[in-house]
Amino acid sequence: MASAVKIPRPRRIPVQVANGSRFDRRLAEILEHATEVFCEKGYAGASMRDLSRSSGMSLAGMYYYFESKERLLYLIQKHTFTTIVERLRERLEGVSHPEHRIRVFILNHLQYFLTNQKAMKVLSHEDDALKNGFGAEIATMKREYYRICRQLMDEFKQARNLDFSSRMAVLSLFGMMNWIYTWYNPRVDADVAELARQMGDILLDGICSRPKGKRKSHN
Amino acid sequence: MASAVKIPRPRRIPVQVANGSRFDRRLAEILEHATEVFCEKGYAGASMRDLSRSSGMSLAGMYYYFESKERLLYLIQKHTFTTIVERLRERLEGVSHPEHRIRVFILNHLQYFLTNQKAMKVLSHEDDALKNGFGAEIATMKREYYRICRQLMDEFKQARNLDFSSRMAVLSLFGMMNWIYTWYNPRVDADVAELARQMGDILLDGICSRPKGKRKSHN
Repeated sequence: MASAVKIPRPRRIPVQVANGSRFDRRLAEILEHATEVFCEKGYAGASMRDLSRSSGMSLAGMYYYFESKERLLYLIQKHTFTTIVERLRERLEGVSHPEHRIRVFILNHLQYFLTNQKAMKVLSHEDDALKNGFGAEIATMKREYYRICRQLMDEFKQARNLDFSSRMAVLSLFGMMNWIYTWYNPRVDADVAELARQMGDILLDGICSRPKGKRKSHN
Repeated sequence: MASAVKIPRPRRIPVQVANGSRFDRRLAEILEHATEVFCEKGYAGASMRDLSRSSGMSLAGMYYYFESKERLLYLIQKHTFTTIVERLRERLEGVSHPEHRIRVFILNHLQYFLTNQKAMKVLSHEDDALKNGFGAEIATMKREYYRICRQLMDEFKQARNLDFSSRMAVLSLFGMMNWIYTWYNPRVDADVAELARQMGDILLDGICSRPKGKRKSHN
């Protein structure tokens, strides 16, 4: 009888990883295990066998649900950016002060990545591992996230009548924040709120000392 | 006759890559090719065969001179830190103003890595790939480099009677600087001198707004 059963087309795991069903929780768990494997072995060095072993799902099951390790990396990245942007939008609601809005951005970013340091490493290291459609989609999400920060920076600049390169300020901020996965040590470093405050101070005081008209204008 | 010749012990390539002899230049060239391969495929994904192909040296030659890809990665990292620290010490000679000394540090770092962006990526990504003796030696060199920057920061703090966390300031600065390999585009971004100036401004003005006594002391 079994041989008469038609093999269904691979079931593509949907991208939304809500917190709802048991299925969603299991998916989030598998993505977490996959993140650990990519973190440990690098994307190029990890095999579907490694990924199956770590998650406790059979190799056949891995191929059936996820198709390839490329798709798993894509799901990890998509999950990360979806979650971080969703939380950011919620937190920005009702905050109108331009400086506070940038501080909310910093805190939201650091909070996500300090509790998901492995995801941060994988995202940084495998930035260009995804090709074609997967890569393009993730690149669009990243640009969107960059644009949100850039807009906050422009609003702050306008409100204070300042003159600095928003691009440089945003990319310097991302550098400061994303680099923490290489050094953060909870035993000697401040907690996330204090860390966000200090980074916010460095950035905001740094750019605030550029009143308009003192130097040539930047982009 | 040939069979009577005793096979010599593998000749370990010395670590100093001076600019002198033809041999040194060839070595620097091979390290450059290896950097490209590690950059492209990741350390885990690269094989000695890939490394031999890219450098134009036979596979046997690669094993003979370099023994393993681990040793190649070690030589790349050692070469990078030796060069960057050497240049920094030369440039700091005769500069006594604490702010200028930090600006020299920033310019030296950015200048090296903007002309060696692939090395920057490999160093960032393969930070923990080296094990045992190799890893320990590189970790010591990195700590030494961090310490130089930390000392410059402490001198600046003392000279200006400021209050900020030197550790945070140094690591934020490294984050800003090292992240550029992910975004720097010579067609839209400023040249290295202007980039160094802007990063210096953000950092220095950021930390200068913390006069002593206004907040609790940081480490």
